[in-house]
Amino acid sequence: MSPVKIGLLGLGTVGGGTANVLLRNAEEIARRVGRDIKIIQAAARETEFPGVNTESFEICDDAFEVVKNPDVDIVIELIGGYEPARELVLQAIANGKHVVTANKALIAKHGNEIFAAAREKGVMVAFEAAVAGGIPIIKALREGLAANRINWIAGIINGTGNFILTEMGDKGRDFPEVLAEAQALGYAEADPTFDVEGIDAAHKLAILCSLAFGVPLQFDKVFTVGISEITQDDVVYAEELGYRIKHLGITRRTEKGIELRVHPTLIPNRRLIANVDGVMNAVLVHGDAVGPTLYYGAGAGAEPTASAVVADVIDIARVLTSDPENRVPHLAFQSNALSDDTILAMEEVETAYYLRMKALDRSGVLADVTRILADQGISIEAMLQKDPVGESHASIIMLTHRVVEKNMNAAINFIESLDSISENVIRIRMETLDS
Amino acid sequence: MSPVKIGLLGLGTVGGGTANVLLRNAEEIARRVGRDIKIIQAAARETEFPGVNTESFEICDDAFEVVKNPDVDIVIELIGGYEPARELVLQAIANGKHVVTANKALIAKHGNEIFAAAREKGVMVAFEAAVAGGIPIIKALREGLAANRINWIAGIINGTGNFILTEMGDKGRDFPEVLAEAQALGYAEADPTFDVEGIDAAHKLAILCSLAFGVPLQFDKVFTVGISEITQDDVVYAEELGYRIKHLGITRRTEKGIELRVHPTLIPNRRLIANVDGVMNAVLVHGDAVGPTLYYGAGAGAEPTASAVVADVIDIARVLTSDPENRVPHLAFQSNALSDDTILAMEEVETAYYLRMKALDRSGVLADVTRILADQGISIEAMLQKDPVGESHASIIMLTHRVVEKNMNAAINFIESLDSISENVIRIRMETLDS
Repeated sequence: MSPVKIGLLGLGTVGGGTANVLLRNAEEIARRVGRDIKIIQAAARETEFPGVNTESFEICDDAFEVVKNPDVDIVIELIGGYEPARELVLQAIANGKHVVTANKALIAKHGNEIFAAAREKGVMVAFEAAVAGGIPIIKALREGLAANRINWIAGIINGTGNFILTEMGDKGRDFPEVLAEAQALGYAEADPTFDVEGIDAAHKLAILCSLAFGVPLQFDKVFTVGISEITQDDVVYAEELGYRIKHLGITRRTEKGIELRVHPTLIPNRRLIANVDGVMNAVLVHGDAVGPTLYYGAGAGAEPTASAVVADVIDIARVLTSDPENRVPHLAFQSNALSDDTILAMEEVETAYYLRMKALDRSGVLADVTRILADQGISIEAMLQKDPVGESHASIIMLTHRVVEKNMNAAINFIESLDSISENVIRIRMETLDS
Repeated sequence: MSPVKIGLLGLGTVGGGTANVLLRNAEEIARRVGRDIKIIQAAARETEFPGVNTESFEICDDAFEVVKNPDVDIVIELIGGYEPARELVLQAIANGKHVVTANKALIAKHGNEIFAAAREKGVMVAFEAAVAGGIPIIKALREGLAANRINWIAGIINGTGNFILTEMGDKGRDFPEVLAEAQALGYAEADPTFDVEGIDAAHKLAILCSLAFGVPLQFDKVFTVGISEITQDDVVYAEELGYRIKHLGITRRTEKGIELRVHPTLIPNRRLIANVDGVMNAVLVHGDAVGPTLYYGAGAGAEPTASAVVADVIDIARVLTSDPENRVPHLAFQSNALSDDTILAMEEVETAYYLRMKALDRSGVLADVTRILADQGISIEAMLQKDPVGESHASIIMLTHRVVEKNMNAAINFIESLDSISENVIRIRMETLDS
């Protein structure tokens, strides 16, 4: 089957990330879709693309050329802003192209018009990347939670704002100072208004509101307060009262009508969402059947956003490739493309360990134990000794660095054979879950 | 268009929940699908169904009758266990029915056979509810994260086990005591082996592994350690070292092969997943493009599980109802079924507030402020007074109970007009996010 052919508008941060992800993961994506996906043409204003693999497609400087290209099946719009993005998307639709966009401003403001055009023309328009970057929140709301009457949504949906509030809270810094750093780090734009004043969050919230409650997009009705007036004092006092300040987008169905508001919000610090820090995003959705669910991940950045863009491309490519009932393979990959990768025996798995042992409290036992561990190549990260009142044995607790399980098995056997060790060694595996 | 017709196998906890959700949310579901979904027949061993709305469908005692019923389009299997569930599902497929199941044991053990039968017959088999209950994690892995090469998954995927570990940690109780309580509360079965020894988690992890890495289901290769040997001492020592013990299912792609293991695990207590407590589930997925993402929600229970079952039913009904490119409406609901619900003006929104004001430190000012608040029906939940060194003004911080914004606007106007108050009153809205 011939590849699905992509025309890419924009080769900046997200455009470059999208090209890289499509190329790097091409083989695995083809196993998922049952067909190759290929960028054939891109439009960009730049002439150099550091870090972007551009070898396999043509680059032009006129985006309108791409939306007219008769070979293009799917147009990916990553230019941003209202115009010419709107005009390009509408022309792509008119030319019978499917469209994927990450443009929240465009969807929030012109979505009603764009969707009507797409329905008329029978093409698909997808916009997962428009809200909360790499978090598949649009799919969760439209499909995963479709059984529910949604009660409310509360989300941290602007990473720059959350980075600023986190820094103010953790490091006691004031707003202007942290904003300057966010700009230096490239999180905030030179004009930070969209992030800091909540306009970007309002775009996303308008989309979430429509998805949750089945109302047309109404960006102009979002009540919006930014974070620029939050002071260090407020962060400290809130903490003292058991709360954290987050910049939330909130939409809720009430008997009187639908609430639609973006503003700094005190939330109890024991809530999971209160502990979402830095540039990360999280969306808390409350459905009548499922109760609260939370979706957490990177809300911006080249590859996280590309993750959502390419997922939309795969969705469309699957529709173009398979019968409707085979659209998504049962096990995510085509049944004839499953791999026979080995499942590793536990003896071969590498992990860190917590060990607890009961030792006769006599000199030499610790030396014996550490020697046995060293012989197996196991180094110790931390140690505690506990001497319970009234017991003749001390408890020794150790955290080790990572080691292959078979070495740990051998070490534990040796340790348990020591006269000075009573009872079995308790072993609990340990993971940092950080990369 | 005629309704999509459902045959329901099992009217226990999840079956009853599924019937209730389908009936209660029928109107909103029809707005999503563009068509009604109706249970026409159910099979149950019981004869009474407390709390379940069974008025609108026939109930028989022979599940095989339902899978043969020529009027049934979709069979929902909620009996659980290996047999006769396997036989019923295979017969349903042979009879051309689409199948939705919440049965992790069945999918983990017989999924390869069931999927092959479904492909052969051209029917759909869906199993979102089989892993992590109401959390749409299967959809996230198969579709939302499809752009990624998945690196690893770590999940709290058994609520009973997590409840036990949470109670041991928070309340200093020992394993046997908490297990007894979990059984009394109905979280753990009379035979708690599946939960406590990690077999239930292993079923789910086998499914997640296949979805992540595109390998066949291999339940028999899951390395599994339960939580019954975790003692209160270990929980306390781990906490002292900065870790929390969670019963995790972990699957990871390494150069040597795929890790596939369920065991108690020490994880740093600052990780979001370390703070997932009680019966809740959470799945942390690390993809090469998106980085870490986390999915949190109820992993069991009647309606949370029904949420996933009915989402699968809606997925199938959408395929049966619409052209492939219109399967999921842009805004989650059919474009001709959008509602004109009012967006509430902010003045009408009710919320709690944090207020901070600068007061001349003289008697009477607090009395004035509280009187103004009381006049607007605003009651105070907490108060702090701060007297910064070297300033002539004191800061008064108040948390209020919920009130309509227009009353707060009026109160703030009155407060700001007091001679004893300098500067504007700072107001930050407050939400508990708990229901």
